Formats: sequence, structure tokens, C-alpha cells
Amino acid sequence: MTANVQPARGTRDFLPDDVRRREYVIGVIRNVYERYGFEPLETPAFENIETLLGKYGEEGNKLIFKILKRGEHEASGEADLALRYDLTVPLARVVAQYQSELPRFFKRYQIQPVWRADRPARGRFREFYQCDVDAIGTTSTLVEIDVLSAVSEVLRRLGFDNFVIRLNHRELLTGLLAAAGIPAASHGDALVAIDKLDKIQREGVIKDLAGRGIAADVGGRALDLFQLDVPVGMRLQLQQQERAVYAIDQLKEIVELSAGTPAGGRIQLDPSLARGLSYYTGTIMEIAVPDLAGSLGGGGRYDNLVGMFLGKDVPACGFSLGLERILVVMAERNMFPASVANAAVDVMVTIWNHDTRADSLALAAQLREAGLRVDLYPEADKLGKQFKYASARRVPFVVILGDDERGRGEVAIKDLRSGDQTAVKRSEVSTYVKTRLNG
Amino acid sequence: MTANVQPARGTRDFLPDDVRRREYVIGVIRNVYERYGFEPLETPAFENIETLLGKYGEEGNKLIFKILKRGEHEASGEADLALRYDLTVPLARVVAQYQSELPRFFKRYQIQPVWRADRPARGRFREFYQCDVDAIGTTSTLVEIDVLSAVSEVLRRLGFDNFVIRLNHRELLTGLLAAAGIPAASHGDALVAIDKLDKIQREGVIKDLAGRGIAADVGGRALDLFQLDVPVGMRLQLQQQERAVYAIDQLKEIVELSAGTPAGGRIQLDPSLARGLSYYTGTIMEIAVPDLAGSLGGGGRYDNLVGMFLGKDVPACGFSLGLERILVVMAERNMFPASVANAAVDVMVTIWNHDTRADSLALAAQLREAGLRVDLYPEADKLGKQFKYASARRVPFVVILGDDERGRGEVAIKDLRSGDQTAVKRSEVSTYVKTRLNG
Repeated sequence: MTANVQPARGTRDFLPDDVRRREYVIGVIRNVYERYGFEPLETPAFENIETLLGKYGEEGNKLIFKILKRGEHEASGEADLALRYDLTVPLARVVAQYQSELPRFFKRYQIQPVWRADRPARGRFREFYQCDVDAIGTTSTLVEIDVLSAVSEVLRRLGFDNFVIRLNHRELLTGLLAAAGIPAASHGDALVAIDKLDKIQREGVIKDLAGRGIAADVGGRALDLFQLDVPVGMRLQLQQQERAVYAIDQLKEIVELSAGTPAGGRIQLDPSLARGLSYYTGTIMEIAVPDLAGSLGGGGRYDNLVGMFLGKDVPACGFSLGLERILVVMAERNMFPASVANAAVDVMVTIWNHDTRADSLALAAQLREAGLRVDLYPEADKLGKQFKYASARRVPFVVILGDDERGRGEVAIKDLRSGDQTAVKRSEVSTYVKTRLNG
Repeated sequence: MTANVQPARGTRDFLPDDVRRREYVIGVIRNVYERYGFEPLETPAFENIETLLGKYGEEGNKLIFKILKRGEHEASGEADLALRYDLTVPLARVVAQYQSELPRFFKRYQIQPVWRADRPARGRFREFYQCDVDAIGTTSTLVEIDVLSAVSEVLRRLGFDNFVIRLNHRELLTGLLAAAGIPAASHGDALVAIDKLDKIQREGVIKDLAGRGIAADVGGRALDLFQLDVPVGMRLQLQQQERAVYAIDQLKEIVELSAGTPAGGRIQLDPSLARGLSYYTGTIMEIAVPDLAGSLGGGGRYDNLVGMFLGKDVPACGFSLGLERILVVMAERNMFPASVANAAVDVMVTIWNHDTRADSLALAAQLREAGLRVDLYPEADKLGKQFKYASARRVPFVVILGDDERGRGEVAIKDLRSGDQTAVKRSEVSTYVKTRLNG
């Protein structure tokens, strides 16, 4: 009988080629985030359960993986810990705990897995990585611009040429719905309906709104307002609402000031973008690729979340790139550079016979010392078998330490790509391989 | 009222300086492992609970973090998933699942956190990283040598000059205990007692053995055997036991063949090394630093573990470096290179006033494009305040876009280390900073 050898439902094993693709993308993200002055943070995989409960709404609560108490308490069936559900709530806790040690403006990035007990589906996993940037401590729109520039540059460097940044503002949403006559308690409901405009058209949305207790004339007025041009028409309609006007001015400023950054020309104001509202208090952002359902990431301003831990509000703005989504699209569209698929090993040292193993070990040590990635065949198999193995692993060079060559202080090097075999002085093996690797 | 903002018991938050130190060590480890031909593998944080239960002995079972079933099953208090407890059992599962896709000799490294519900203590955490290398698919001692060379090179590169590799063999242990007349069922007990020889001396061990039902003369004989010289005296005493002689020959071979590798001269045969026996079937290894209690890592050969998943045995040998231990020692002994503590940012661009923000943004974009790590001060504060902030963050260069300088197409650059301020053409800012950064 053999055991179940599958990874747990909704999770994945990453074999070497997978890891190299993931590391490539993570490397680009980390490099760009650091050039924008963001610093790395890591938090534990699990948190005290109170830290997470109540932060993600009722639906979120249900998707949190909970860890059973241990020892004598295990039988109680109670949970005291929970797996990280996103990277934002742990950040808020960290800001509250270490406020005296952190700089006044704390710009951090965090690239770690999160876990959600969602129903697994194509591209939706129970373990997945988020790549977050957040700037804490200021209400200045310059951090919105910094964050949008950073994620735009990441996407450009990965080869996404046609992404679009959708931008909205919580206060504009609130202002629009209020101006239409929709009571605050129905704002969430109304947004769910309005968000479907593309799919079910005007009449469908009005019907949907009616089903949520919003009269047809109110619904129609809301749709009219949402379809106005933001900086002019909408500004005029909402001129009595100070907060909404302020929001429109902020959005305008972000678009204008972004012009000279990698986010320049990418931003589209989208008054219906809500992203579930969740904890956003100001700007709301999302990045999408036109011919792809769903988004590559999203974010916004959340000036109250840190306050839930600290007891006093601290302004904050951030963005979360979805690594898994990016990887799926890049694989489907062959966006990885050829070098990512290169062999893991530059050269394999063969074993001539049982008695020459020390010689092979010494040569491997010498080549590794020179910085090459070297595999040592572990058994004194027939050479043909050793070559076949190297070939299957796509190793470009194989070194043979035959008796004759060793007698002359040489080795034979076979280039498995061309089939050429050459005798090379032992002291020159690493130079020989390095020169031809880059060729 | 403020919330509890501590990380969960036994876990840690890593602030930017911590992450940089961890990344430095992980970078060295990854680089060396890759030069030895090991390829990266990653497995999920949690496994189906059956995958882990029963693999780590009774004590291990108790230390596994278990995840509550979700939804309607949550109230049952049952667990169906469990957090990764080490990196070896997931590897064995992966080898069983993907055997047809993996090379005949699968050399993998894996650097990921594991979780154990141990009582937290100094240097002992509930979330900690392991850095494993394993070679699957051959019984050749060349993989023992490859693994020991790789971890030795890691430690040398990190600056550990005086580590010692303790080496033993399961079959030698078994042979010694059998030769002393200790029945197989008491071998585990006997080793726990013999392991204390340094602390409680000969009489203490014999007394301890007696308490475990092993007569004093048998215990005395065992101690005599364990204190013999391995390759000569022990080999002579055990000559009737074929497996033990084979084990001694393997150990001798490993020591001799390692001579020309980074493990050369580091290996000490230690017949009492047991590492809890656990799943080891052949060699048992441990690395320690003389003036440090405990080890920096350990490993050995486990030819039966993959068989628990696959139904047929597959030979395997590996080593696990303890990242947390290495970090603690390196911090205590100031072993980090100065560059690890460098500032996270090369240059900060200041804001002259509200109206010049676009100019500051454009300059920041230009410097980032040139590869510099650039922070943009987010508010139009007084310059003195902006300088103070840069200084607190240890930023070496600050750029000022004053009206006069801008009029001349220049900026002022202040070197916060020397206090010098210079006017520099805008197009030359990145070159100016880069030249002086490396100085």
C-alpha cells in the first residue's frame, strides 16, 4: 500500500523549474521596490487569532485557517492561532508595536505567502504569495504616486506593456451615492450592482438595485452621475460636497504628477471601482491587463487600520501585487526570458572508475572554487550512462578524467550542445568552460 | 483600548535590518548549494495531517501544529491539515509523487520555515528556517562527501573557521551495542545514557544504564567498545559483524575522499553520535563549533523514508543547516560584513515646495532608472526637517532642487557623511552619486 502523496488541496509543490520562474519574478519585484526606497519586512506565518478575526469582514473570517490549541487543550477543539490572511493586517500590527523604532515615514515591502480556505479553482489557490508595498505615516499623494510608479515599473520590467491602472477614491464614491439619494447603509449593496454595468447594462443594474431596495429613479440618477466625466462634470454635480471635491482634486493631482513616472499615461479614473470597499478610506487602485479577466493587483489608502491596533490613527497607503496571477499570465504568454530556463548546472564531472573518485572530487572542488555550478556524477557507471544523464539534465559541459588525459595533466571536455570533445589542461578547465558558456 | 500587538508566542517579526541579515546568510547558502549542483524545491506550508503524523516519533507528533477543519466541520474540533515540521518528510512525499519527472539522482535544496510547538526558549522558536540539501537515488558515499563539502563551504564563507564535523554510522552503532550484549530493544535507551559520558563520566553512565535495565558489566563493556579507535581497534573487535565492518570502511572512505574538499580535515569520527536515531539508516552527521553548546546542523542517510510514501525504498542522504542558530552566533560574534548594515537608500530627493513636486518626482525617476535606490521625501516640510529624517535613516546623499539651482539646470547634493554640499548638473547627478558611493 502506498500513501497519499499529493500536496494538500489548493496547495502546490514547486519543482526546480517552477522555483526558478518564481525567483525570477520575485527578484525583479524586490529590485524595483528597493530602488523606490522600500525596505523588507517579514512577519510570522501565524498570528494570535484575535489579531486577524474581525479584520476581513464576515466572509473573510470564514476563510481564515485556524490552528488547534496544543497539549491538554487540543481536545477542546479550540483555536488560538490563525494563518496569515494578507500582509496588511500584520503590517498594521507591526507599526503599532514598533512605532518608536520605525522611521516617521515607514516604507516597507513584504513578499510572503498567505493562506485562505477558498474553494480552489483555476488560478485560485489556498496558499499564494502576495508582494506588497506600503508607505506609512503621511497623507501626501506623493506616496500614492510612489506606490503606483513602483508597481508600474515592476510590470514594465516583466514585459507587461498594456496594463491599465484604474483609480478611484472612497470619498468620491460616497459623494456620488449620497448625491443620488442612496442612504449610507445601502452603499455597499449599490456598488455591487453598479459594478456589473459592463455585463448587464443599464436596465439590468437598475433592476438589480431595485432588488436591493433602491428605487428605479434613484438608481437611474446614480448611474447618470457615475457616467459623468470626473474632473469636470462630476466635480460640478458634487460641488456642494466638500469631501467629494477634495477627492476629485486628489485624483487629478495624482494623474498629473504621475506624468513623468513609470505610471505616467497608465491611469484611468474609474468612479465605480470599489474593491469590496474593505478598509479603504481614500484612493482605491487596481491594475488590470485589458484581455485578462480579474486584476494583477490592487491597493489604496487605509488611514484607520493601524488605529485598530494602536488606538490612534496613522495614515497609510499601499498596493499588493498578486504573484500567482502574474506567473500564470507570464507562462501562458511566454514572457520569461530564455535565461530562466537555463540548466541548473554548468558542468558535470564524470567518474572514470572507482579508484579515480578522489581525482574527480578534486576537480569538482576546483571548478566550484572558480564559481561554476558543478555536478559530480555519484557512481562509477559506464561513461555512456553518465553522458545520457548529463544530457537529460541539459548540462552543457561534461568533463572526463581518462587515464591517458590524466597522465598528461589534462582532461577531456565534451560540449553536449555541439558534440565536440577537446583535451584541455587541468588548470585551464574553468576558463575554457566559462568562455564557452557565455558564447 | 489598544489591542495585543505582539507576534504569537515563539514567533518573531523581522524588521528591515533583521531581514537584510537573514537574506545575506540565505544568499550565501543558496549560492554555495547551487555551485554544488543542488536545485531549489519548495513545498506548501501545510500538509495533509496523515503525511506528517507518525513520522517524527511520539514526541514529534505532540509538537505538530494542527489546523482545524473548516466550515460546517469546524465545530467538530478535528484537524485535517498540519504545518510543515521539517523539510525531509515533504521531500520524501515529493520524490514519491514526481518520481517520473525527477532526474535519476535528484539533488535538491530547500530553504523554508518549519513550525514546532516547542516551549520557546533562548534561540528556540516555534517558527524557524531550515536550509536543507539532500541527494536522492544513490547509495554512493560521494553524495555524503558532496553534502558535507557544501555545508562546510557555506560555513567557511560565513566566517566560521573552527567548526568540526562529527560523523558516525547507524550500522556501527548497532554493531557496537550488539557486541556489548545490549538487546536491540534497549539500543535507543543505551545511546541516551552513553551520550552523557562527557557530562557524568563513566560511573554515571553505568549507573544510568543500570536504571534502564542494562547490567553494569554489559554497560562497562559498551563503554570500553565506544572508546576504541574506530578504524583499527573497533574494526578488530567487530570483525565478526559484517555490517559494522562495512560501516567502518564507509566512514574511513568518506574521511579519505573528503581530503581535497572544503570538508577536508574537519571530520571527526564519533561512534556515540546518534541524533535521536530517528530515520537514519547509514551515516549520521553533525556540525558543531567548539565553544558553542548544541549544533549548527545535522543530517545523515535515510534509505527507508521515501519508501514510506512510495512503497519501495529509495536511497537518500542529506543535511539540514539551522539558520536561526547560525544567525544568533554571527550576531553575537560580529561576523556580518559591514555592507550588510549599509543604508537601504543611496539618495533622498527633497521637496523644495508644493509647486516643485513634479520636478522632484522626475529627478527621483531619473535616478532610479540609473539603478540607484532613491527615497522621495513625501511632504513639503522645512528642509532642515527633511535633512534630519535622511540622517536618521543613514541616507548618504540628499538632493535639493532649489529655485536658483533649477534655474541653472542644476541641483545641490549634500553628502551627509562629510557635510559637503556641491552644485551638480542635473544630467550628472547619478554619476556623481555612484562614484562617491563606492568611495
